[in-house]
Amino acid sequence: MLLYDSKLAPNPRRVRIFLAEKGIVVPTVQVDIARGESREPSFLARNPLGGTPVLELDDGTHLAESVAICRYFEETQPEPPLMGTDARDRALVEMWQRRMELELFRWVTGCFQNTHAFFAGRIEQVPAYGEVCRKTARDRLAWLDGELAGRPFVAGERYTIADVTALVAVDFGRVVDVRIAPEQKHLMRWYEAVSSRPSAKA
Amino acid sequence: MLLYDSKLAPNPRRVRIFLAEKGIVVPTVQVDIARGESREPSFLARNPLGGTPVLELDDGTHLAESVAICRYFEETQPEPPLMGTDARDRALVEMWQRRMELELFRWVTGCFQNTHAFFAGRIEQVPAYGEVCRKTARDRLAWLDGELAGRPFVAGERYTIADVTALVAVDFGRVVDVRIAPEQKHLMRWYEAVSSRPSAKA
Repeated sequence: MLLYDSKLAPNPRRVRIFLAEKGIVVPTVQVDIARGESREPSFLARNPLGGTPVLELDDGTHLAESVAICRYFEETQPEPPLMGTDARDRALVEMWQRRMELELFRWVTGCFQNTHAFFAGRIEQVPAYGEVCRKTARDRLAWLDGELAGRPFVAGERYTIADVTALVAVDFGRVVDVRIAPEQKHLMRWYEAVSSRPSAKA
Repeated sequence: MLLYDSKLAPNPRRVRIFLAEKGIVVPTVQVDIARGESREPSFLARNPLGGTPVLELDDGTHLAESVAICRYFEETQPEPPLMGTDARDRALVEMWQRRMELELFRWVTGCFQNTHAFFAGRIEQVPAYGEVCRKTARDRLAWLDGELAGRPFVAGERYTIADVTALVAVDFGRVVDVRIAPEQKHLMRWYEAVSSRPSAKA
């Protein structure tokens, strides 16, 4: 087994945090996105879409998509559960994971892709859309602050993959000036809690 | 149990097709998005993000996000499996489901949201970004055609939730002039196969 990782990108960090929470160590190789390594033919043979992370299984299967890789490890090492414990809980965790992905992470990365110099010349940027993303990401942080008023973690009483996605989104948000506001006390309390876990350093 | 459904929107259709494939019948109420019913306080109490579908469980829990609702039914009625059969297969299905969602469905809906009259005045539209979405969606259909050269369904030998998402994306794509090209013969063969299943009428 071999994990193709990229230290600077947000999606691979989701897998690294997930693995750290599980206590799983996987042999890892770094893919230098800035130098274009993920667009080279040898890498595209592993993932034709050119994204990291990619997990190479021992049978030669290549698994891309961070959440799909997390699902593989959740199935092969269920403890501690990070994706739910029964039908209702698994569905609720998936709901919150998707909300963190589609309602927070997506807007942060959409802002980065459409406004940041890193992507200039790599993709067709639309700065006006990047601004819509930035505003929406800030709105979603305010919404999440209200949600966290009633519970310790994003999906309930337990730390889950939804917290992983939200943490990575909040940390990556700094790059595009999307930050927790001082008055968002529930969100700040949650952020301090999840950031102080050893897995956050992954 | 009660499913809040919207006949005209693509996300609820994903759940309806999934349920039809499982042979599950759920009491359903229609939410009229065009008339703004999903933005009324009574509906926002069920899903503060205002999206459909929402599944109300008998204990009063509200489950939003179409894939999370599908996950609930996959767990409670595993046959026929639509989200994988073992750790590796579940991860591969999730990879393809996410690819269909993030690499196809997202671009189609992004084009619709940023160019279509339905969203004028409802959200801040950026037409130039809508055009990027349209072009990317067409590129992704060409990529998917190549992928389908080697297997009958999106995730392999078996019909899965990845086919549901792809079918809904392709059908919704017509609204924004994203269509399978005549030379995309593998994609067309797949489309004809999944469209002729009874579930496609859901």
